[in-house]
Amino acid sequence: MRLFDSGRAPNPRRVRIFLAEKGLEVPTEQVDITTLQHKTPEFTALNPLQRVPVLELDDGTVISESVAICHYFEGLRPEPPLFGRGAKEEALVEMWNRRLEHNLLATVAAVFRHLHPAMKELEAQVPEWGEANKPRVIEFLAFLDRALRDSLFVCGAHYTIADITGLVAIDFMKPARLAVPEELVHLRRWHAQVAARPSAGA
Amino acid sequence: MRLFDSGRAPNPRRVRIFLAEKGLEVPTEQVDITTLQHKTPEFTALNPLQRVPVLELDDGTVISESVAICHYFEGLRPEPPLFGRGAKEEALVEMWNRRLEHNLLATVAAVFRHLHPAMKELEAQVPEWGEANKPRVIEFLAFLDRALRDSLFVCGAHYTIADITGLVAIDFMKPARLAVPEELVHLRRWHAQVAARPSAGA
Repeated sequence: MRLFDSGRAPNPRRVRIFLAEKGLEVPTEQVDITTLQHKTPEFTALNPLQRVPVLELDDGTVISESVAICHYFEGLRPEPPLFGRGAKEEALVEMWNRRLEHNLLATVAAVFRHLHPAMKELEAQVPEWGEANKPRVIEFLAFLDRALRDSLFVCGAHYTIADITGLVAIDFMKPARLAVPEELVHLRRWHAQVAARPSAGA
Repeated sequence: MRLFDSGRAPNPRRVRIFLAEKGLEVPTEQVDITTLQHKTPEFTALNPLQRVPVLELDDGTVISESVAICHYFEGLRPEPPLFGRGAKEEALVEMWNRRLEHNLLATVAAVFRHLHPAMKELEAQVPEWGEANKPRVIEFLAFLDRALRDSLFVCGAHYTIADITGLVAIDFMKPARLAVPEELVHLRRWHAQVAARPSAGA
């Protein structure tokens, strides 16, 4: 098995944190996005959509999409459960992970991709779209702050993949030049807590 | 249990098709988006993100996000499996479902929301962003056509949730004023086949 990873991008980091929480180590190859290694014929043959991360299994099966890769590792090593336990909890983890993906990770990414000068050559930028996403980020953070007032982690008492998506999205706010408002104290408490876990260094 | 559904929107339709494939019937309430019923205090109390569909369980648990709701029903009635069977197949279904969500359902939705005159009052439109998504839709359809050349369904020999997402996304192209290119014959074969299933009428 080989994991095609890429240094600073948020999605590869989601998989690295997931592996660290599981205590799993996987042989890794680096794909340098800044030199367009994800657009080479070799990498395109693995994932025609030219996105990292990608997991290649020993039988040649290729799995792309971060959450699909995490799902596969959850099957390999079920403990600790990071997708929930039982039908209801699994549905709630899926709900929270998707809420964070659509309303936070995707909106922060839109701000970064469409407004950051470093992305000019990699993306056909629509600055107005980047600007339109700024208030969406802040609005969702306020919602998340309220949810975390009475909850240790994003989806209740246990750390799950939703916390990973949240941590990665919030940390991605820095290069996107966005800041978490001071008054969101529950969100800040939660972020400090998940950022202090050893897995956050992955 | 109560499902909060909404007539013509693509995400509620994903859940209805999923239920039809499972042979499940669930008590349903209609939420009329055109008259902003998803923004009432009552509905906002259920889902603060003001999105349909929403599933309310008998114990008061509220599950939003279409795929999370489908995941819950998969747990209730595992047959036929629509999320795959076994770790590898489940990861591949997750991968394909996400590929279709990010590259087709989301891009078609961006064209509809940011360019359709009927959406002017519901959405802060960024027409340039709508236009930027048109070539992304067509580019992904060509990729999907190649994948369907040797495959009965999106993810191999079995109908899965990825086919549901694909069908709903392609049908959403009509109100978005987009057309499937004539030459994508494998995609057209697959679409005719999934659209002919009784569940497609849901």
